[in-house]
Amino acid sequence: MISRRKFIQKAGLTASTLPLMPAAETLFNNQNQNQAVLRVAIMGLGSYANRVARAMESCTRAKVVGVISGTPSKVKEWQARYSIPEENCYNYETISEIASNKNIDAVYIITPNALHCEQTLQVAKAGKHVICEKPMAINAVEGARMIAACEAAGVQLLIGYRMHFEPKTLEAIALRASGELGKILFFQGLSGFRIGNPNQWRLNKKLSGGGAMMDIGIYSINGARYMIGEEPTWVTAQETKTDPIKFKEGIDETIQFQLGFPSGAIASCLSTYSMNDLDRFYLNGTKGQVEMQPSTGYGPISGRSHLGPLKAPVVTHQTIQMDAMAGILLNNEKAPVAVDGYEGLKDMKIIDAIFKAVSTGQKISLTNW
Amino acid sequence: MISRRKFIQKAGLTASTLPLMPAAETLFNNQNQNQAVLRVAIMGLGSYANRVARAMESCTRAKVVGVISGTPSKVKEWQARYSIPEENCYNYETISEIASNKNIDAVYIITPNALHCEQTLQVAKAGKHVICEKPMAINAVEGARMIAACEAAGVQLLIGYRMHFEPKTLEAIALRASGELGKILFFQGLSGFRIGNPNQWRLNKKLSGGGAMMDIGIYSINGARYMIGEEPTWVTAQETKTDPIKFKEGIDETIQFQLGFPSGAIASCLSTYSMNDLDRFYLNGTKGQVEMQPSTGYGPISGRSHLGPLKAPVVTHQTIQMDAMAGILLNNEKAPVAVDGYEGLKDMKIIDAIFKAVSTGQKISLTNW
Repeated sequence: MISRRKFIQKAGLTASTLPLMPAAETLFNNQNQNQAVLRVAIMGLGSYANRVARAMESCTRAKVVGVISGTPSKVKEWQARYSIPEENCYNYETISEIASNKNIDAVYIITPNALHCEQTLQVAKAGKHVICEKPMAINAVEGARMIAACEAAGVQLLIGYRMHFEPKTLEAIALRASGELGKILFFQGLSGFRIGNPNQWRLNKKLSGGGAMMDIGIYSINGARYMIGEEPTWVTAQETKTDPIKFKEGIDETIQFQLGFPSGAIASCLSTYSMNDLDRFYLNGTKGQVEMQPSTGYGPISGRSHLGPLKAPVVTHQTIQMDAMAGILLNNEKAPVAVDGYEGLKDMKIIDAIFKAVSTGQKISLTNW
Repeated sequence: MISRRKFIQKAGLTASTLPLMPAAETLFNNQNQNQAVLRVAIMGLGSYANRVARAMESCTRAKVVGVISGTPSKVKEWQARYSIPEENCYNYETISEIASNKNIDAVYIITPNALHCEQTLQVAKAGKHVICEKPMAINAVEGARMIAACEAAGVQLLIGYRMHFEPKTLEAIALRASGELGKILFFQGLSGFRIGNPNQWRLNKKLSGGGAMMDIGIYSINGARYMIGEEPTWVTAQETKTDPIKFKEGIDETIQFQLGFPSGAIASCLSTYSMNDLDRFYLNGTKGQVEMQPSTGYGPISGRSHLGPLKAPVVTHQTIQMDAMAGILLNNEKAPVAVDGYEGLKDMKIIDAIFKAVSTGQKISLTNW
């Protein structure tokens, strides 16, 4: 079992320098070491799971082979569409039985945020790699528990940071890393959309753990980190709620937040569930700029720098992500930008601090743990 | 003499509803009531004064007829270029003598910020209308003194808000006012440039009264107000200083600030002296958006809404401004967006609050005075 201090130390590493953990030498991995294709079971069969599975039809190294769902009718549909055998279908009471299934390598958890932690612990205990959709959990303590549990079980934990594999995003990061933009001074992230159905789980604190920040604001948090290439040291934040009926206690509608970085770079970000089509990144350095719009949406990313348009190809994000994750999990390949549990934990710590900044009105230091 | 309470009440009016003051029935105005051209003396002959004077060569209703300067060589240059007679040339010791000059209607004060208040008082005492470059002063108390002094002297006080006459800006405001954008939710203003010469007056607290906020950040403050069409009720702000040698105590390099408005709309703004080419406005409503870039620079303004590009003509800002100000001062015409002392005071109150928010780390209410 990894010590608390040890993973805190690891979590202090920067996204760019954090090494991937070596693959655990488990029975499971030995069995699959010549396996070219990552066999994935999807947990939670909602709309994003559908999007992932459709994208995975174009994967060359990953395949949907199983499902975990509490809704038998959905399981039937998925079995038919993806030719999933009966023995690879589970519900939330039978998760532990996945341990004996030699035809499943990893479980991709695509359930409401508040369920991620316990479900990750269950999957880890069953000896399968975990891919967990972001946010990895509803707070940093849960994230830390997930990391510890996966390390103890000898399985890997990856977080569904699809932008970390998206070509135009990587092109922008490479421009910054090359020094082409000069010293980085300012990042702006606007992340939001106007949320519809007031009865969905995203607006239910018990399932979501929070509102827009958990769901969409995290793109600006994560984006600030990978675009600037540093870890923030402080945060301030201001909440605005215009519709307290739709956005109940604990469900943030709109939060502005600001981050400070060791170099003196700053970030100004917006997270919202009440504005249309807000999906913009802007990075300003002494020698140049990059702007992206859309910057994190599911469709084609578009951007330009002072040198002209970003030229990297348009891809289906989840196809690229899952092929790359197969390489990470099966062949110990390195992600272009970290997607492990420590990466997820960094965002959770910032989200915790944003909520604390909102409730106290204070500038919150991010260097304390 | 206007009471403190009276001008505070007036200052509480919104930009869109504030009526222009009726022209004072002074000897001066009676003498010029048939005068089609506003005869302007420029006080302070620096680079912006040069820009204004060149632009005024194309004015049909305003003309540079005099100068006030402490530098005799500049006075000679201006006399030659603008055919200014000797009797319309003053220095800072002879300002009071303008009182007896029947050929000057107004003085345009284009001097360092910290001098605006006393100079306005001097010009008002001499019975001439005051046009004062923004920021009107270095704090709200000074601004209030200026308003009171001009009202007591029966002269008008206008602030050099050139964007309030700029056609694309007015087109954007009209779009918002028409309801075309729906309910306004968010304004973003990025205002900054990389300041050069470290020895200029803008970086000398005694002359500037502050750093980037006074000089360029005020565009985002003022822009937030005219683009949203409301007066803010609170402000939060965070300062970053990366170069304490260049930006000394009291000279702000970079400040992020956030404003909240009665409708629930919010603004996120950046003021900086250390970033290149930051001149962007973005306004988001439930039904549409407007973005402008450049949004406040001296050159052509460019912008688009969800309906397409803004179509209003490109103009020389200062030409339009001075012709319009001639109409205000001579014919009691109404400015499209207020440019009087109360308008300037509103921005000064917000700047005061931003500095207080920075120093205290607290959210500052703007409804107290």
